[in-house]
Amino acid sequence: MTYNELVKQIKVKKSFLCVGLDSDITKLPKHLIELKRPVFEFNKAIIDATAPYTVAYKPNLAFYESRGIEGWKDLEDTVSYLKKNYPDVFLIADAKRGDIGNTSKMYAEAFFKHLSFDAVTVAPYMGSDSVQPFLEFESKFVILLALTSNKSAAEFQYFSNKENQSLFLEVIQKANEWANEENMMFVVGATKASMLVKVREAAPKNFLLVPGVGAQGGSLQEVAKYGMTADCGLLVNASRSIIFAGSDEQFAISAAAEAKIMQLEMSELLTSKGIFE
Amino acid sequence: MTYNELVKQIKVKKSFLCVGLDSDITKLPKHLIELKRPVFEFNKAIIDATAPYTVAYKPNLAFYESRGIEGWKDLEDTVSYLKKNYPDVFLIADAKRGDIGNTSKMYAEAFFKHLSFDAVTVAPYMGSDSVQPFLEFESKFVILLALTSNKSAAEFQYFSNKENQSLFLEVIQKANEWANEENMMFVVGATKASMLVKVREAAPKNFLLVPGVGAQGGSLQEVAKYGMTADCGLLVNASRSIIFAGSDEQFAISAAAEAKIMQLEMSELLTSKGIFE
Repeated sequence: MTYNELVKQIKVKKSFLCVGLDSDITKLPKHLIELKRPVFEFNKAIIDATAPYTVAYKPNLAFYESRGIEGWKDLEDTVSYLKKNYPDVFLIADAKRGDIGNTSKMYAEAFFKHLSFDAVTVAPYMGSDSVQPFLEFESKFVILLALTSNKSAAEFQYFSNKENQSLFLEVIQKANEWANEENMMFVVGATKASMLVKVREAAPKNFLLVPGVGAQGGSLQEVAKYGMTADCGLLVNASRSIIFAGSDEQFAISAAAEAKIMQLEMSELLTSKGIFE
Repeated sequence: MTYNELVKQIKVKKSFLCVGLDSDITKLPKHLIELKRPVFEFNKAIIDATAPYTVAYKPNLAFYESRGIEGWKDLEDTVSYLKKNYPDVFLIADAKRGDIGNTSKMYAEAFFKHLSFDAVTVAPYMGSDSVQPFLEFESKFVILLALTSNKSAAEFQYFSNKENQSLFLEVIQKANEWANEENMMFVVGATKASMLVKVREAAPKNFLLVPGVGAQGGSLQEVAKYGMTADCGLLVNASRSIIFAGSDEQFAISAAAEAKIMQLEMSELLTSKGIFE
């Protein structure tokens, strides 16, 4: 999917919501566990219920890999289900990969060709040649970790040089030398919304993938205030607060309700910025 | 495997060689391709041929994941084969993971419980709470990326603060506040051997996993000169230079010959340091 196609979807759906498919098998509604493939059935129900409010889905690969071959099958089938039934949604592999060139190339092929994701999250520590192989695919995005939403993010991401430049800003600036908004996004946690001002100075046009709204306590209003561009430029992710909103047989309806609440707030924010068709 | 058990294996085998199972299916000897499971057959032959000279094996997960379910099956069966036939070798999942706490926990379970690896490579960018879940397993190791062997490593790893401290040293110092040599190792590329002096100041006792000898051009003598401790403290990895040493029906013999050459050099280095039983 291209940058323009993503912006169009945001305008059509009046939403910049990304639903994180952190489908932890130990947290599924009890009645699903008896089924043959509980995670895949859960994902299908969550997707069908939330798709009207959602522009992107983000399976977190840890929750699939940790279950070995069964988990990989659930991941592959979830991606196929999305591609077949919701071809206009943006698909993010939350993988946080990053390795030497020949290895990153294998990962890029795994996520972009084998699994046909639109984007993959990448860790910046190893520098440009660990990112480059992902940039060689047309209409695909790298989403580079910049400022993450976890507590210990500050330990290295705020590490600063003589000019008082933090590592996370160095990462953003360097990355925009290798790429641009057509193939590069950044992860910036909602829990650090005030930092979005600095991020936007370094990355005025790139989309930001913003985790941390919901279960982790970030505010959607703050994120939009400091982070929204003329093209929206935001994908706000919520995982647990949506997919585990309910735990009984009505779990999908509960998830849809949570997604809808977020989408309504997003619709207002987009409208007030004049971002609609 | 514990620190002491690893040191013992190094003394018994007179080797600190780690063989990287970067088993790229496109590079296998032609005659294997016709078999039902070429990568698994290749790995078994490489392992049987090199095990006398090797204390550790390191499958690079990218080369398995990129092949989806088939690849995961090859990885699982390779690990099982190693555990069953060579229970004394140290098994490293070269995964370079690192995510928020609940996700890292899933990865830790995937690699340490589901697959029974002894160690996993982890990227430091997200800080201590992305590493902590891996440290909670007895007799298992985190191998944290510090100074990698790729060309662009310098872009962020040499990023320096006011006191002229580089990020990679900050990573090592911080990590040794969360952990010690019993559960923490560091990746330090052989291509930066002179930097090992600084690494050893910050990490006098931790094992270092050293890639970059062989195909990437680093020198074993230099690595030992600057990096060896009284307990050896080194695992030197070679991947392509060993596993793809030959491409005909004798490929395993060629791999064994390359491994043996390295082991002989290692044996001399260990002996000259008085590290033997």
